[in-house]
Amino acid sequence: MQHNLQIYNTLTRKKEIFEPINPPHVGMYVCGPTVYGDAHLGHARAAITFDIVFRYLMHLGYKVRYVRNITDVGHLENDTDELGEDKIAKKARLDQLEPMEVVQLFVNRYHKNMEQLNVLPPSIEPSASGHIIEQIEYVKEILKNGYAYEQDGSVYFDVVRYNQDYNYGKLSGRKVEDLLQNTRELAGQEDKKNSFDFALWKKADAKHIMRWPSPWSDGYPGWHMECSAMGAKYLGEQFDIHGGGLDLLFPHHESEIAQVNAAKGHEAVKYWMHNNMITTSGQKMGKSLNNFITLDDFFNGNNPALDRAYDPMIIRFFMLQAHYRSTLDFSNEALQAAEKGMNKLFEANKLLGQIQASTSSVDIKKYHDLCYDALNDDFNTPIALAHLFDLARIVNQVNDGKESFSEEDISMAKKLFETLLFSVFGLRDEKGKDDSHLIDYLMSTILDIRKQAKLNKDYATADKIREELEKLNIQIKDSKEGSNWSFK
Amino acid sequence: MQHNLQIYNTLTRKKEIFEPINPPHVGMYVCGPTVYGDAHLGHARAAITFDIVFRYLMHLGYKVRYVRNITDVGHLENDTDELGEDKIAKKARLDQLEPMEVVQLFVNRYHKNMEQLNVLPPSIEPSASGHIIEQIEYVKEILKNGYAYEQDGSVYFDVVRYNQDYNYGKLSGRKVEDLLQNTRELAGQEDKKNSFDFALWKKADAKHIMRWPSPWSDGYPGWHMECSAMGAKYLGEQFDIHGGGLDLLFPHHESEIAQVNAAKGHEAVKYWMHNNMITTSGQKMGKSLNNFITLDDFFNGNNPALDRAYDPMIIRFFMLQAHYRSTLDFSNEALQAAEKGMNKLFEANKLLGQIQASTSSVDIKKYHDLCYDALNDDFNTPIALAHLFDLARIVNQVNDGKESFSEEDISMAKKLFETLLFSVFGLRDEKGKDDSHLIDYLMSTILDIRKQAKLNKDYATADKIREELEKLNIQIKDSKEGSNWSFK
Repeated sequence: MQHNLQIYNTLTRKKEIFEPINPPHVGMYVCGPTVYGDAHLGHARAAITFDIVFRYLMHLGYKVRYVRNITDVGHLENDTDELGEDKIAKKARLDQLEPMEVVQLFVNRYHKNMEQLNVLPPSIEPSASGHIIEQIEYVKEILKNGYAYEQDGSVYFDVVRYNQDYNYGKLSGRKVEDLLQNTRELAGQEDKKNSFDFALWKKADAKHIMRWPSPWSDGYPGWHMECSAMGAKYLGEQFDIHGGGLDLLFPHHESEIAQVNAAKGHEAVKYWMHNNMITTSGQKMGKSLNNFITLDDFFNGNNPALDRAYDPMIIRFFMLQAHYRSTLDFSNEALQAAEKGMNKLFEANKLLGQIQASTSSVDIKKYHDLCYDALNDDFNTPIALAHLFDLARIVNQVNDGKESFSEEDISMAKKLFETLLFSVFGLRDEKGKDDSHLIDYLMSTILDIRKQAKLNKDYATADKIREELEKLNIQIKDSKEGSNWSFK
Repeated sequence: MQHNLQIYNTLTRKKEIFEPINPPHVGMYVCGPTVYGDAHLGHARAAITFDIVFRYLMHLGYKVRYVRNITDVGHLENDTDELGEDKIAKKARLDQLEPMEVVQLFVNRYHKNMEQLNVLPPSIEPSASGHIIEQIEYVKEILKNGYAYEQDGSVYFDVVRYNQDYNYGKLSGRKVEDLLQNTRELAGQEDKKNSFDFALWKKADAKHIMRWPSPWSDGYPGWHMECSAMGAKYLGEQFDIHGGGLDLLFPHHESEIAQVNAAKGHEAVKYWMHNNMITTSGQKMGKSLNNFITLDDFFNGNNPALDRAYDPMIIRFFMLQAHYRSTLDFSNEALQAAEKGMNKLFEANKLLGQIQASTSSVDIKKYHDLCYDALNDDFNTPIALAHLFDLARIVNQVNDGKESFSEEDISMAKKLFETLLFSVFGLRDEKGKDDSHLIDYLMSTILDIRKQAKLNKDYATADKIREELEKLNIQIKDSKEGSNWSFK
């Protein structure tokens, strides 16, 4: 694999050359949604960020096993403390549904949104509730190693004890001493030695619906446990990339690292990656802040904050115009600018199909290299797009006769546009559903093959092609000038 | 709820008035796919049959909780005996994938097929591997009640012991005495008292990947266990409808009944429903018989048994033209007749929008009642369709001035057509859509030609095809299983 990919590792706080543990295989784990409501712009950002990573690594030739989980149990309303109702259970209670009906509904809707955004499905999409045994086994290991304690049927991670041997705060930069000073004692936390100790297993109270037997109580796993257990199950004890939103850095990912060290005696993840947040007028957008706009809202324009509906591809392009580690401020103007920008690139790409070749006056290779340099620099999509915009401008100049392309320039530029726009960035040119062009191309390819077969006197193949097309209700008419096709 | 719905109950072998246990709620459990390959016509029949039940019950005003499972562990190659490799594990071994990657791939493809067929997603879609604890707890209950025995880490259901208290064979009509005489002793079954005893829990041998800890061994649940455990979890100890294909009647459903009685002391299911099989030239179609045609084959025409591609709605309509308890023989002629019939109904429905009202010469109410009578008679869709065809003929006569409709007639007829065709039968009028399908079809045609060229050692043509497609930024990937294509 020839490349210079560097990834910013949140753990070391610097860009590092990407060297997977077991090339050409790459294992990547990304925290997926807690499925108790519709996906919003923040979900889209995480999904698209790691979709780009997934696509680009595959483009470089890696075989990626991408695991993105579904959190369907254990995520309490108050992320930081061990307080509040389970998010899914609460939604189920309000809607008078079985919790798993809530899960199914929002998983289906999430999948639909992801498909609209052209986010590829992960290789494995495990759910927390489907891996209770694996989580229980994990808790047992941590208990055995002395980094957790049982109290009244619940099991808590002993942060102070862990911090004697390891560094709790390594990822987030927080210090246990500060945590000790700054956390309040909250009601319902009497069981814990320290308020920042987190639950590995929670005993379920009488009215809690989602519960499973365990050595400690009928209960449910703590939120952080699922990712450690499912990451290990599907990617092994050590794997390459762990991703998620920056809001998950603490306590979720910090606690994951602690759990893994406590159970296995070593870390699991080589590169930690975090996408930054979406803001709206500078404020973080989120479900808990109640200022979020769902993806469906964007796609149908049904929200007072929106001037109009926005095609999923506009949302996708808007995301790509910021680096994933920068915040991204939503506004109608920004989305409309994204749409214009995207269309400019699509149009330049189409122009390339019409341009007449002559002598070369432009160094296309330079733009190719600049784009790949940007992507290799921690997936810097906005810089790569900036270079594509430059190239698009030149395409227009060629079209206006101010610059000129050779045959090779045209084909290199076309390949660069199509590879990056459609394959790596995962955009779809949905304007007027330009499928009809492609159908024309494919048909002429097929007719060419048939013509060649006839020239070779391979009439079996020529007839076979005619028959296959007949099945699609496509009719071939042969004449002296060649063959034509039409729908029957 | 005013209706006269009768359902044929396989258990009592007669039609019974449908009276749910806890109206307006209805609990329905249907056996879903074992996800180790692409869905074929048989899968479509089960899915469409119970989609009609789901849709019609909702149309009648019931609140239906529809559970359809995913079998992703425990289903061995030889359905009847406890022999052979796990179907998923085998596919994973052959493809060098993690079993859950196989599961995810085929779940995604199944979901896509279901969406193409306009089959509504179930309320909950639980997977066997996600409910190991529930299954272990269930096995414990059966052991405690004395209807199972442990042998070398595996747990088997004791059919003879059970048959002393209950009737093993109640659903299928088989007799234990006959089973005793007719079953052979097979290798690998030494652990069992009787060859027809079935596994509730199987100890995993060293190379078995999918395994979980249990009180008896590291192993995996028996195939029949998942439905008992998940049915109870999501629908309660007693629920209304359990459905599945007739091929699951024995041993799967018979064993489910036995498990439930053995654990709970009473049955779970009020109405057992079974859809009949698809045949081809009179022979059962199935994956194990190797004469199946996948749904994708139907949709793109890529199978020597098919004259052409068939739109998913043609497949759906074809299914509706037979009663679910009759066998249905596949042929190209039947599919083409289905297409014509469906289009006749769509056209009549459209004509209704154009017809001028005058005096009434037809008793529309009669057709309404006949259609509903048919549906209330154990979901008799072919009879309901026959009445819609009669009505369509009259619509044409009205259009020709031979009969006449009042304003009310038109609106009643329109409501009847639209409700039944689109809402209850779940058809979609897709004429004039769908270029993306055609691209898929054309690409598979091209890949076929290329495959044939390679078989003929005509590598020039094979390479030419690859080059031509590259120009369109279409990439071909060759693998053992054939060739795939994607946009670069």
